[in-house]
Amino acid sequence: MKQSQLFVKTSRNAPADEEAKNAKLLIRAGFINKEMAGVYSYLPLGLMVLRNIENIVREEMNAIGGNEVSLSILHPKENWDKTGRWGTMDVLFKLQSQTKKMYALGPTHEEIIAPLAQKFISSYRDLPAYYYQIQTKFRDELRAKSGILRGREFLMKDFYSFHRNQEDLDSYYAVAQKAYARVFDRLGLKAVLTEASGGTFSKYSHEYQVLHPVGEDIIFHCDSCDFAQNKEIVEVASSDACPRCGKGKVASSNGAEVGNIFKLGTKYTEPFSVKYKDEEGKEHIAMMGCYGIGISRAMGLIAEIYSDDKGFLWPEQIAPFKVHLIELKNGLGSSLYERLQAKGNRVLYDDRDLKAGEKFNDADLIGIPYRAVVSEKTGDKIELKKRGEDRTELLTYNEFIQKLP
Amino acid sequence: MKQSQLFVKTSRNAPADEEAKNAKLLIRAGFINKEMAGVYSYLPLGLMVLRNIENIVREEMNAIGGNEVSLSILHPKENWDKTGRWGTMDVLFKLQSQTKKMYALGPTHEEIIAPLAQKFISSYRDLPAYYYQIQTKFRDELRAKSGILRGREFLMKDFYSFHRNQEDLDSYYAVAQKAYARVFDRLGLKAVLTEASGGTFSKYSHEYQVLHPVGEDIIFHCDSCDFAQNKEIVEVASSDACPRCGKGKVASSNGAEVGNIFKLGTKYTEPFSVKYKDEEGKEHIAMMGCYGIGISRAMGLIAEIYSDDKGFLWPEQIAPFKVHLIELKNGLGSSLYERLQAKGNRVLYDDRDLKAGEKFNDADLIGIPYRAVVSEKTGDKIELKKRGEDRTELLTYNEFIQKLP
Repeated sequence: MKQSQLFVKTSRNAPADEEAKNAKLLIRAGFINKEMAGVYSYLPLGLMVLRNIENIVREEMNAIGGNEVSLSILHPKENWDKTGRWGTMDVLFKLQSQTKKMYALGPTHEEIIAPLAQKFISSYRDLPAYYYQIQTKFRDELRAKSGILRGREFLMKDFYSFHRNQEDLDSYYAVAQKAYARVFDRLGLKAVLTEASGGTFSKYSHEYQVLHPVGEDIIFHCDSCDFAQNKEIVEVASSDACPRCGKGKVASSNGAEVGNIFKLGTKYTEPFSVKYKDEEGKEHIAMMGCYGIGISRAMGLIAEIYSDDKGFLWPEQIAPFKVHLIELKNGLGSSLYERLQAKGNRVLYDDRDLKAGEKFNDADLIGIPYRAVVSEKTGDKIELKKRGEDRTELLTYNEFIQKLP
Repeated sequence: MKQSQLFVKTSRNAPADEEAKNAKLLIRAGFINKEMAGVYSYLPLGLMVLRNIENIVREEMNAIGGNEVSLSILHPKENWDKTGRWGTMDVLFKLQSQTKKMYALGPTHEEIIAPLAQKFISSYRDLPAYYYQIQTKFRDELRAKSGILRGREFLMKDFYSFHRNQEDLDSYYAVAQKAYARVFDRLGLKAVLTEASGGTFSKYSHEYQVLHPVGEDIIFHCDSCDFAQNKEIVEVASSDACPRCGKGKVASSNGAEVGNIFKLGTKYTEPFSVKYKDEEGKEHIAMMGCYGIGISRAMGLIAEIYSDDKGFLWPEQIAPFKVHLIELKNGLGSSLYERLQAKGNRVLYDDRDLKAGEKFNDADLIGIPYRAVVSEKTGDKIELKKRGEDRTELLTYNEFIQKLP
């Protein structure tokens, strides 16, 4: 893409009303726009990053048998009355239609997927069943100061599994954990599997916590084994011996929850009568699990972690483009741009009539992994620099192509 | 995909509370689920169809320079106050946060894109600029009886262009019309360019109307030339001579609006101060155009048009899969399934343990273009039938592959 056709500009100053680093930098770099507290629009570069994250998550969910759906955002009040959550979930956005129907804006979709699954599940042959979606969700947060880490409107992946018994749910829960490990690995996020409250049919639920000062949770974790618990359930104190391995010491850190998984058991399948008949014709209530990943929150965390004082250092698989091609004289880059694109590279081509310094500052801010400069000085060659490194190399086209992964 | 892993079933009976053919058939075939009046969830096959339509639209919008964004669904009341539409748009869903902020759920995004464009447009060099999105929108309809043709929650493509003057807006408006012609052609929809009210800076706006009994508009059109006007502005009567060509006769038909384009002029750029400086440093208000396509409505229309009493006949470019492979004995289709997929074909593989008649009925209902049957009777060969044709052919694998486009 030509940068002159991006229709978005970087800005020198951070917005005055943002506290969070992710929002400040993403707005300055022109990736997002703040509409109001906790509500952001995604501009072309930001949407590309979000889609790259989405596609990694989608691939891994498909790989464990998930079938993608798109459930409604408007939920009928009756469904939420049935589970009792209409009155108890304080972050539920509620609205009324002209026809006096009450709706909720979906913050999560157990109240929609359980009655839907009920229509398709009648026999043990229909189980297990796995549905997921990647969708905008809504939470009426009292405070929204963490940029895209905690928005009133945000993008989630929510996956729901249905099983004939606890054993099958347990074994799939382990499969989902492996998929989650692959997702966070591919996203470049070190997510710690953390025990937390909220287990209905198991002692704990599990959260995926990225240990980082920006996180709003407090996580107690062992410095030697994989013990990690959310403060809300913990029975140890900092510098205690680890209750799991006995060898390590417990420390506490801030954590940002980027995913969570729950064994829901029959909590939602019972009110919505998700039943199946077994081989003998006997009726049972199906068991359910749910598995969430905050897509826009993951983007916010990657933005917090993969950045320096100049801007972003997007991991290649997340970056909006692979190569940022900068010409220092009008038209000098156009044939290289076409050659690189013809080879299937995602290239942002800075064809704007600006000073070199401005272009380099923008490139550092936007944070595309490979910067390629062509100028009168480089002649037939290309100056390559990786974002985050100081070293530049002057390369022929063939040498340049070989350096790109 | 294996049909046993679809986690969705067809059903024999149409839902009692649906009047519209598109909804009846889409629900029976397991493409969508009705959550309440005017609100539907998209199940795996339905989501595939929706994505195929989306991608055709996306390609054509990118081809005319559009840059994809994703604007917020929650809109601040202040923006709608500024244009006066908070009080005048009766289908605007409104809600209040815990913090007593009033929001609208976006039915269209002029109130968001204009202030956003204002941030990035300051010079004539920044124009023209083109932004679009494909996004779920909301309208608080009083009546919602047309299935996915008129929902309270629906998928739209909305494109916004900004220009330095009327001349540039006019010439881009013609470019957009050509892109729209390509979109509807690729979707298999005959959409008639129809003059309608709502022109702010031009006499008329334009609607793309598919003439079909299911449509809720009345269109007067000439049987000889391209004259077509919405009833709301028309000054002729049925069987009058055509006011444009004088030769043809005017007739009226029901029409379903699948797209619309507007020259908005400065209607939204003025209240949000979208200004630019020209070559002499003189300030002007930018001109704006907007261009909508109803993505889920297009799906509903295709469903209405491309169907018979047995089910759907999806055009190939829209169909969820290209080949429906049906085995009449367990496991008989598995190696063919793998060979076809390896060749890049999108295949739905009916590996379920059901009677032949049930499988064939499901195949007709789901409406995938090519049906391939393998059974003990076909031996090493494959029985090919196109949906909508009666003729079957018994082919070798190589013959079969050659028949697939």
